[in-house]
Amino acid sequence: MKTILAFDIGGTNIRTGLFSEESIEPLYIKKIRTTDKDHSALDNILFLIEETLEKYPSLTAISMAVPGSVDNKQGIVFNAPNVDGWKNVPLRQTIKEKFGIDPFIENDASMAAYGEWKHGAGRGHNYLLYMTISTGIGGAVIDDGHLLTGFRGLGTEKGHMTIVENGPMCSCGQPGHLEALASGTAIAAYVHKQMAEGVETILKADPAPTAETIAEAARKGDALSIEAYRRAGYYLGIGLASYLHIFNPSCIILGGGVSFSGDLFYKPLYESLKERVMNEQYLVGLEINYAELGDMAGLIGAYQWSLDNL
Amino acid sequence: MKTILAFDIGGTNIRTGLFSEESIEPLYIKKIRTTDKDHSALDNILFLIEETLEKYPSLTAISMAVPGSVDNKQGIVFNAPNVDGWKNVPLRQTIKEKFGIDPFIENDASMAAYGEWKHGAGRGHNYLLYMTISTGIGGAVIDDGHLLTGFRGLGTEKGHMTIVENGPMCSCGQPGHLEALASGTAIAAYVHKQMAEGVETILKADPAPTAETIAEAARKGDALSIEAYRRAGYYLGIGLASYLHIFNPSCIILGGGVSFSGDLFYKPLYESLKERVMNEQYLVGLEINYAELGDMAGLIGAYQWSLDNL
Repeated sequence: MKTILAFDIGGTNIRTGLFSEESIEPLYIKKIRTTDKDHSALDNILFLIEETLEKYPSLTAISMAVPGSVDNKQGIVFNAPNVDGWKNVPLRQTIKEKFGIDPFIENDASMAAYGEWKHGAGRGHNYLLYMTISTGIGGAVIDDGHLLTGFRGLGTEKGHMTIVENGPMCSCGQPGHLEALASGTAIAAYVHKQMAEGVETILKADPAPTAETIAEAARKGDALSIEAYRRAGYYLGIGLASYLHIFNPSCIILGGGVSFSGDLFYKPLYESLKERVMNEQYLVGLEINYAELGDMAGLIGAYQWSLDNL
Repeated sequence: MKTILAFDIGGTNIRTGLFSEESIEPLYIKKIRTTDKDHSALDNILFLIEETLEKYPSLTAISMAVPGSVDNKQGIVFNAPNVDGWKNVPLRQTIKEKFGIDPFIENDASMAAYGEWKHGAGRGHNYLLYMTISTGIGGAVIDDGHLLTGFRGLGTEKGHMTIVENGPMCSCGQPGHLEALASGTAIAAYVHKQMAEGVETILKADPAPTAETIAEAARKGDALSIEAYRRAGYYLGIGLASYLHIFNPSCIILGGGVSFSGDLFYKPLYESLKERVMNEQYLVGLEINYAELGDMAGLIGAYQWSLDNL
């Protein structure tokens, strides 16, 4: 029986799960801090593999979901600022040399999309757009059962599409990207700016409001907070309309904390999407679903991806 | 030996070519006006098939490249305004019922991309972004050898991505799309507007300047014309940077009349692309090529597509 050790590497935690080929219920699951004062992220990953191999020496595959720019063919992480500031980390080679197992290394949004497609909110669809809206915006696309990754695995940056020619600066240093307009960070930045300009709100300036506290205030009727979510939803609707034209999916899956803010976010999003789509044909048969697998999506996706590509 | 009748249906002309499976050199090729006073586009297509079947009764396949929104599974043309104002034309069913041959019906940019990939400027690449910039902007993407089409074949509208939130109106009725900023129509519209506002130029107001006459004037040093092309190139660069992030191709192919305006268009395009790309990794190994197959791209692509999907 095949056994697969899957990783979902995050900025805060590393999750790992051991799966058999028979079930998406892991044999065991473990979560540790990505870094601590004595161990780098890489130390911790290698330790987790070693620990598993002691118990399961016949491991079939290792599969990793990594947040950032990943060359999925070479297995090099070009850029994952949240993970120990990773730059050009030869993750695949390091693991292969140490353990003799050639791991799968993919972008985390791709793996979450794959997991949702096979086992979650995208089941039964072959044309899928997955978007995760939290601190940043990521995404992935499946077209006729094919997961898009691009030449060097870098075609996953669905948040880095220009929507407003000279709009607010994105985390990547470019102006007007979708991520700079509709992410949790964008929601908070907008509120901070309005507060600095003296706009009235029930929010306190210290500690600085986050997407979560802003959502709470919005639910209490705070006009600034409602407007911040309306604005983010409006921009995401513009972005999704473009993505409908570019990809024509039969299913959009929305994941990430901001997505789960309910009508506060979804209503303006859907209104703007409907208004900005160039032709109603793009809405025919289209499902818009919330992600179902929660924080297990990346792990389940990485497991299934390696199983399907062994 | 398999024989394939390919069509490239345009607003002005219908081209058809008969191919054997052995070569991309057609056995014969024919071009007629799309419509005339006695015949609709559909009349002409059916006539061309009939004529071919008389000589080649054992035709293996019919394959069509259609300019517009095409449901490639049902073979229905939802919208092809340039072709006789086509709306919801059941092209596949009509041909199948009349001739007993089930035709391939695909978007023309998809077929041109496929042709350029297999036999033109994209040979040897498996990750390809094809963009055609002429009256409008179309495009298609191949990822790991897979041509993207979308759920109902409508995922080909690469010109209908919002770049400027409330920018100039696009032919589709939506504001700020790439097509409304960087197409031949956009170049002409910009010049017309500037002339109406009294900006100096060597261009005559009547007949109204076209993308071609503006390119000529630019080559003579006309500042307004140079600016019109610079602006279009600048916006296409922004769009292409987004597409690099979304698709990470190893090759961009530029086709269509506006693309062939030389440095006038290419220089600002490339400068803006370089400036707007979020990470130099997207430029590593990237080729930007001009299309090679000229007006044969759609025909050759449609032929090859049917051959590969029979």
